[in-house]
Amino acid sequence: MNQAGSKGATIMRWADELAGHSEAQDMLTRTYLTAAHAGAAEQLGQWMREAGMSVRRDAAGNVIGRYEGQTADAPALLTGSHFDTVRDAGKYDGNLGILLPIACIAEWNRQGKRFPFAIEVIGFAEEEGVRFKATLLGSRAIAGTFDTSVLDKIDDQGKSMRQVMHAAGFNPEQLARAAYPRENVLAFVEVHIEQGPVLLDANLPLGVVTAISGATRFQVQATGLAGHAGTVPMTLRRDAAMTAAEIGLYIEKRCSGIAGLVGTVGQLNVPNGAANVVPGKAVFTIDIRAETDEVREAAVADVLNAMQEIAARRSVSLDINKTHEARSVPCAGWLQRQLGAAIGNTDMAVCHLPSGAGHDAMALAAITDVAMLFVRCGNGGISHHPDEIMTVDDADIAAQAFGDFVEHFTHQH
Amino acid sequence: MNQAGSKGATIMRWADELAGHSEAQDMLTRTYLTAAHAGAAEQLGQWMREAGMSVRRDAAGNVIGRYEGQTADAPALLTGSHFDTVRDAGKYDGNLGILLPIACIAEWNRQGKRFPFAIEVIGFAEEEGVRFKATLLGSRAIAGTFDTSVLDKIDDQGKSMRQVMHAAGFNPEQLARAAYPRENVLAFVEVHIEQGPVLLDANLPLGVVTAISGATRFQVQATGLAGHAGTVPMTLRRDAAMTAAEIGLYIEKRCSGIAGLVGTVGQLNVPNGAANVVPGKAVFTIDIRAETDEVREAAVADVLNAMQEIAARRSVSLDINKTHEARSVPCAGWLQRQLGAAIGNTDMAVCHLPSGAGHDAMALAAITDVAMLFVRCGNGGISHHPDEIMTVDDADIAAQAFGDFVEHFTHQH
Repeated sequence: MNQAGSKGATIMRWADELAGHSEAQDMLTRTYLTAAHAGAAEQLGQWMREAGMSVRRDAAGNVIGRYEGQTADAPALLTGSHFDTVRDAGKYDGNLGILLPIACIAEWNRQGKRFPFAIEVIGFAEEEGVRFKATLLGSRAIAGTFDTSVLDKIDDQGKSMRQVMHAAGFNPEQLARAAYPRENVLAFVEVHIEQGPVLLDANLPLGVVTAISGATRFQVQATGLAGHAGTVPMTLRRDAAMTAAEIGLYIEKRCSGIAGLVGTVGQLNVPNGAANVVPGKAVFTIDIRAETDEVREAAVADVLNAMQEIAARRSVSLDINKTHEARSVPCAGWLQRQLGAAIGNTDMAVCHLPSGAGHDAMALAAITDVAMLFVRCGNGGISHHPDEIMTVDDADIAAQAFGDFVEHFTHQH
Repeated sequence: MNQAGSKGATIMRWADELAGHSEAQDMLTRTYLTAAHAGAAEQLGQWMREAGMSVRRDAAGNVIGRYEGQTADAPALLTGSHFDTVRDAGKYDGNLGILLPIACIAEWNRQGKRFPFAIEVIGFAEEEGVRFKATLLGSRAIAGTFDTSVLDKIDDQGKSMRQVMHAAGFNPEQLARAAYPRENVLAFVEVHIEQGPVLLDANLPLGVVTAISGATRFQVQATGLAGHAGTVPMTLRRDAAMTAAEIGLYIEKRCSGIAGLVGTVGQLNVPNGAANVVPGKAVFTIDIRAETDEVREAAVADVLNAMQEIAARRSVSLDINKTHEARSVPCAGWLQRQLGAAIGNTDMAVCHLPSGAGHDAMALAAITDVAMLFVRCGNGGISHHPDEIMTVDDADIAAQAFGDFVEHFTHQH
C-alpha cells in the first residue's frame, strides 16, 4: 500500500515540509506566534485551500479550514490538532492530526464528494505551553474556556502574550468570538500519534482512545537527619533518600497491574549529597494518572497513606504539596464505536487504550463529544524528541480508517 | 564532678580558645599550613611546654610534645590526633585528642610523676584532606608512609603542597626524617570524639574502638529509557530511578542487623528529571563499611549480585565504578583490654564499637599497635559541623580514663 501517490505518502511529505518551519536551526521548535509559527500557519492554509476548503484564522491564531457539506451552514464534524511544538520536537506530534484530514478531504474534493455535515479541520495555534507556560490556548479559545488572565504571562524575552498577539496581528480582545456555538458542532475527533509504546507493543497501527487520563501531581520534600555514612548505625538512621526510595517503589507497585493506571517519580534528588553522608534531605515528584477518576483517587489515597506510614516508621518528615490535579476526560462511547468500526474495515484488530498525555480534545470536551484515533509511534514510543517516528504505511492506514469513519459518520448523543 | 579546676573544664576552655585560630570569620576552618594553622600549632606547643614537655615540629608540620619517662630516651607511648579541621567544623574533632593528654600530663608534671616510658603527644598537622584533597598527611609522615607524589597537588589558589610547605618553613625534602623508628614506640592510643550516635544512644560517655572499619565505595550510573509519565504503561518501563531505589533498599536491608556493618546511598540524582518523564538515567553512590573485611566483602559481593539481578529484571544497564577501597584496621586486643579496664575504673560500663570514620590511628598502625578511646558526641552524634558538642563531664571522665590507662599501661605484644 506504500505508494508515492497514497494519502500516507502525502502526509509524510507534508510533515517533512512543515517541519522546515522552525525557529531553531537543525531541530524543530515552533512556539506560539513566532515567525516559524506564522509560516507553518500559512502553509497549512494553502494545503487546506488546495483541498477545497475555505480558510480563516481566529483571534487565537488557530487556522480553520471548512469543507462544506451538502447544504450550506450544515453543522460541522470537527477534527484537527496543534501545530505548535515543544523544543527539539518530533514531526508528527500535533501536526499529523491536521495533515491527515486535509489529505482525506483533498481526495473527497477531487471526487466531488460531500457529506450531510461540514468538516472543519482546525490547526490549533497553541497546545504545548512552551512559550507562555500555559497550555491548550488554541483549543480553549475554540471551546470558549480561554482564561484571559494568561494574556499577562511573559515569555523569555519579557513580552506579554497580549503584546505578542497584537504584534502578530491577532486581537486578544476578540478571543471570545473564537468560541464555537455548540449547536454548530456535531463532535470533535482528533487524530494523534500515540506518544507511547502500547500500539507498538501490541503490533497494531491504530488505537481508539477510551479517555484522556486524569492526573494528580505532588512535589515532596523528605527531611530526616544527615549523618556520617561510617559512624551512624543502620538502626539509628533517619535516611531521607531511602524514605523516598521506599515511597517510589510503593507507588510503582500500587500502580502496576491495573489497566490505565500509571505512577511515576520523575524527579528524585538528594540536594548536596555526598558519598559519605547519610542523606538528611530528598526531594521528589509524584505523578499518578488513570483512565477513571475513581481508580486514580483510590491510588492517590493509598499512596498518601503509605507515605505517612513509611515516613513515620523511618522518623522522617514529609512536606507534600499537590501541584496539579485534573479529572479524566472520557471519550464518547458512540464515537469510540464508530472509530472501532472504521478500524475494523481496514481489517485491523481494534485496540482500546487511554491517553496518558493531554490533548486538545480535553478542551473541546467542554462543548461537544470527543474521541481520538491514535497512530502507532515507532522507536519504542518516543515522542517530544526528534527520534519520534511513524511509518508511511501507518499514516496511510490511519487515513483509510479516518476516511471510513467520516464516510460512515452518524451523529448520536 | 564538673568543677572549674577539673581536667574536663581545662579541656573545654582550651578547645574554645583553640577554635579562635580559624582562617574564616564566624566559623572554624583551619586547613593545612595556613596562618590559622600556624597559630594553633604555636598555642598547642605553648600548652605542651607549660605541661612539662619538650616540643618540636617535624618536616610535615606536626607538633610533637615529649614528656620524658623515668629514664632518658625511654621508648614512648604515643598519643594525639589532628589539629587541622574541615570547613565550618566542630571544636572537638581531632583537637580533643591533643588537648586531653596535655591536660593529663600537666597534672602528672605538677605531681612530679614519671612513668617507665616516655609519652609523646602528637598534634598531627593534617588529617582531613581539605586543602590538598589528600588525607592523613601528618600521621603518614610519622608512620613513614607519606606518599611524596602528593607534594605536587595544588590548592585552590594554585599553589603546590611543596611550595606551601617551603613558604611555611617546612622542608618537604626532610619528610622521611619525620618517620618514627619502630623500636622507639610502644603503642599509639588516640582519643577522639565519636562523631556518631552510638554512645549517646547507649547512654555511656566512653567507648573502646574495636577497629577502624574498612570501606568500599562505588559510583553507579543506571541507564534505562526515558518515557512519558502518562503514556508508558508500568509493564513497558525501564525506569532508572526505581532501579536505583530498589538497589538502595537492598543495600539498606543487607547491611542491617549485622553489628559493625553499614551501607549508604549518599548521592542519588535523576539528572534533568521532570515530573512527567519516566527517568531514563539515575546516578548514585554506594558506601559499604564494616568492622571486618570478611563482613564487608561478603556484603559487597551480595550487593553487586543483587544489582545485576535488579537491573536485568528491569532492562536497565549499570555502569559501576569502584572509587575507593580500604581494608579494616583492627585495634590491638591488649590495648582494648587496658582501655576497657581504665573505663571500668571510672565505674562506667564498657561499650565496644567500630569506628566507621577514618582516623590518624589508621596510619600509625603501619608502625605500632593502635587503639582508640571514643568520647560521646552530643546532639544526635553530629560532627563536621559547628553543632558538634561534648559535655565538660564527658571530657573529664575521658581524661580520668585516659589517665588511668596510662598509669596502668603495661606494654604487651
